[in-house]
Amino acid sequence: MKRTKIKELLTTTPSGQQVTVQGWVRTFRNNQFVAINDGSTIQNIQAVVDFNNTPETLLKRITTGACVSITGELVPSPAKGQPVEVKVQKLEILGDSDAEKFPLQPKKHSLEFLREIAHLRARTNTFGAVMRVRHAMAFAVHKFFNERGFVYVHTPVITGSDAEGAGAMFRVTTLDANNPPRDEQGKVDHKQDFFGRETNLTVSGQLEGETYALALGDIYTFGPTFRAENSNTTRHLAEFWMIEPEMAFYDIQDNMQLAQDFLQYLVRYALEHCAEDLEFLNKRALEEEQTKPQEQRSELSLIDRLKFVSENDFQRLSYTEAIDILRSSTPNKKKKFQYLIDEWGADLQSEHERFLVEKHFKKPVILYNYPAAIKSFYMRQNEDGKTVAAMDVLFPGIGEIIGGSQREERYDRLLKRVQELGLPDKDLWWYLELRKFGSAPHSGFGLGFERLILFVTGMTNIRDVIPFPRFPGNAEF
Amino acid sequence: MKRTKIKELLTTTPSGQQVTVQGWVRTFRNNQFVAINDGSTIQNIQAVVDFNNTPETLLKRITTGACVSITGELVPSPAKGQPVEVKVQKLEILGDSDAEKFPLQPKKHSLEFLREIAHLRARTNTFGAVMRVRHAMAFAVHKFFNERGFVYVHTPVITGSDAEGAGAMFRVTTLDANNPPRDEQGKVDHKQDFFGRETNLTVSGQLEGETYALALGDIYTFGPTFRAENSNTTRHLAEFWMIEPEMAFYDIQDNMQLAQDFLQYLVRYALEHCAEDLEFLNKRALEEEQTKPQEQRSELSLIDRLKFVSENDFQRLSYTEAIDILRSSTPNKKKKFQYLIDEWGADLQSEHERFLVEKHFKKPVILYNYPAAIKSFYMRQNEDGKTVAAMDVLFPGIGEIIGGSQREERYDRLLKRVQELGLPDKDLWWYLELRKFGSAPHSGFGLGFERLILFVTGMTNIRDVIPFPRFPGNAEF
Repeated sequence: MKRTKIKELLTTTPSGQQVTVQGWVRTFRNNQFVAINDGSTIQNIQAVVDFNNTPETLLKRITTGACVSITGELVPSPAKGQPVEVKVQKLEILGDSDAEKFPLQPKKHSLEFLREIAHLRARTNTFGAVMRVRHAMAFAVHKFFNERGFVYVHTPVITGSDAEGAGAMFRVTTLDANNPPRDEQGKVDHKQDFFGRETNLTVSGQLEGETYALALGDIYTFGPTFRAENSNTTRHLAEFWMIEPEMAFYDIQDNMQLAQDFLQYLVRYALEHCAEDLEFLNKRALEEEQTKPQEQRSELSLIDRLKFVSENDFQRLSYTEAIDILRSSTPNKKKKFQYLIDEWGADLQSEHERFLVEKHFKKPVILYNYPAAIKSFYMRQNEDGKTVAAMDVLFPGIGEIIGGSQREERYDRLLKRVQELGLPDKDLWWYLELRKFGSAPHSGFGLGFERLILFVTGMTNIRDVIPFPRFPGNAEF
Repeated sequence: MKRTKIKELLTTTPSGQQVTVQGWVRTFRNNQFVAINDGSTIQNIQAVVDFNNTPETLLKRITTGACVSITGELVPSPAKGQPVEVKVQKLEILGDSDAEKFPLQPKKHSLEFLREIAHLRARTNTFGAVMRVRHAMAFAVHKFFNERGFVYVHTPVITGSDAEGAGAMFRVTTLDANNPPRDEQGKVDHKQDFFGRETNLTVSGQLEGETYALALGDIYTFGPTFRAENSNTTRHLAEFWMIEPEMAFYDIQDNMQLAQDFLQYLVRYALEHCAEDLEFLNKRALEEEQTKPQEQRSELSLIDRLKFVSENDFQRLSYTEAIDILRSSTPNKKKKFQYLIDEWGADLQSEHERFLVEKHFKKPVILYNYPAAIKSFYMRQNEDGKTVAAMDVLFPGIGEIIGGSQREERYDRLLKRVQELGLPDKDLWWYLELRKFGSAPHSGFGLGFERLILFVTGMTNIRDVIPFPRFPGNAEF
């Protein structure tokens, strides 16, 4: 008999119909009550075994972690908090689980321990919830852009250009590591490598994305990107997923509006479609908060935070305005900032961003028009001669969740900037050429997908919101 | 004034309302008629310039490839084949395009030439159409699985395991290429590499996907995969996107049904949502057919092929049945096959697959239950002791578009197979462990996304259905 998913059964009106449930045993109480989860929802379904008429040998195999197939009647449940249960007629063990050896005992495990068994952790409530929310968010990303007529573009992962300069790169090669071919100077001869040149893993699909924006209008990428930086933090991964929309005919104001619309759409989608998982994660986050000292606790619960973000406009202010606020702020005057803000031009640190978002405005902030000196070469130069049309969206608890800009569409200005910074303009021939043939004002931004998932799930370590995290020293599984 | 996309304008009832169009000039005729495309649709909109009242210097800048912003009245068009046109009130050049130097002249270019200017080719009708269809197919993939309650899982791109054995791999490293650290034996010391071990780019997310199927039930991956093979063919890329669903509690029959449902859903989605682009590609394919000798031409046009696949069940037959048909087929008897089919156990070549699909059954074919010896270690061993529950979906003109199997869920059998083949069972500890703790029957398959796009667009070279193709000797852009 074809199985029905537990998510569906839990909303079915019970009338003694025969159903089949398949899933993993979470608990087995009193030789009678089996709690089964199949991953379709965070809720378990209860199956009631007639233990008087079930062989002892079979009962013994109903252990935490075992996979079972149960056929029986769907009936109203007398127990609290569950509308239905299954009266077992037939129970089959599909896969045993040695209760002594199964790593996931029916108790609370630390997130650190669960990271070591990433192949099993999706069977816990927390990771099941996080991964279902992650799915919903990925789908919402595609839905949002599809509804607005954006074209999804798969920009390349292996790249010959090192131009974006967003960070250290991983080299990709098929040369014999121990004995690579060498040129006349004794250097490794990448001409003999697979692609006939040195290649790396991409740090961003933006530059390639721009070529498509200047052909199809509105496009977006959603793919893996890489940083070979030795960052062992709760906010960085060596491999992560990024979403990069790029829009022809958008200026920086249009760009900011899209960023806000996009993030609010995603958060609303989560609230609408992931209610049960968010409720669980909300409770989980509250419990975690209780372990912190009073002054470090959030004023808002997870769900309140999500609602707040989805319902309120983000505060937009220029870098210059931000510097004024920071300079005259109490933590700056009292020298509580680790990096004091003295003058215009300073790069903002996480402590400053958090002050603006969490203390001063108490809502998401979009900072724009940054000093050119601290931003990338491709950002559009403003007429003041010192700032560029960059923008960062800052979120409570997360910091920068989106970075973007209007792009420099003027060939001469872009070339000059490339040369000033000593970038390899030979590698950038195609990017520069976009400004020679039918250039157009255009803008775009990048959203780190895992940062979004951190915000929406209330998890605090980025290694816990991606199935198999990659970081220095870890490429297990 | 905010621009309106051409796709929207072309279905707007004209009543002299003022509109703004922004896009790229395709042609400019008689100093009067500008055909503009903005990528939102394959159709251009015509703008009519009052050349008597437009400065000569401005008229001269309306060149093929230039980017323009036009504001004017939307009026019914007297010309054939276009419902509306724009009577220009204001025309601004956003980006010039030197008519002599612009690589995309208003004439037919070869696909080979266009590959060399991949940063501009999306501005042609063919690539615009292909890339919009590609977008629609990616969205349909997510929509299909989301509707069925599958969870999208991002499996890792960088992997420490080389177990799947699907092909040669790219090494990923941050060690100094010229002077890597070496161990006592003089070998490169990957313990000092970024991840503390040798790592490669993934050839498949299947094994990691299985860990999630055995927790969440139904999952799928959709991400880039890699092959470091020196294949210079029209069917292979070094970097391509693959979709890999993996389902707990599915047997091989369920798996075949899902594969058929999935492909038919995608093709129907294309027919419904990409009508204009497919009409163009249909015509394009017909023209290309005309250049071939009669006997090599398809019996069906592109659109007829799509309809045929979406409306008819796929033929399911076992490998053994296929061998019988092939052995007694005319080309085998007349020795027209390059590889003659003598006995059971032979690996099928593309010529045999094409014979079955295109000549014998004249429809898509699902072959299943292959000899174990020619298939992967993780496929479920059938009770006959010689075959495994593998399946391949074969499409006309494409050959294998999907490969999959029921997975071996029995620990002892899997371990034995791993050892027989000399695979690194130490690296596979987590994969084997899935069979120790709550194992379940499960199945899955892989769909090469670009193969699908080839089929749906009627393009013949896989390098022309991905934005920036990667193949031996090529990682430009």
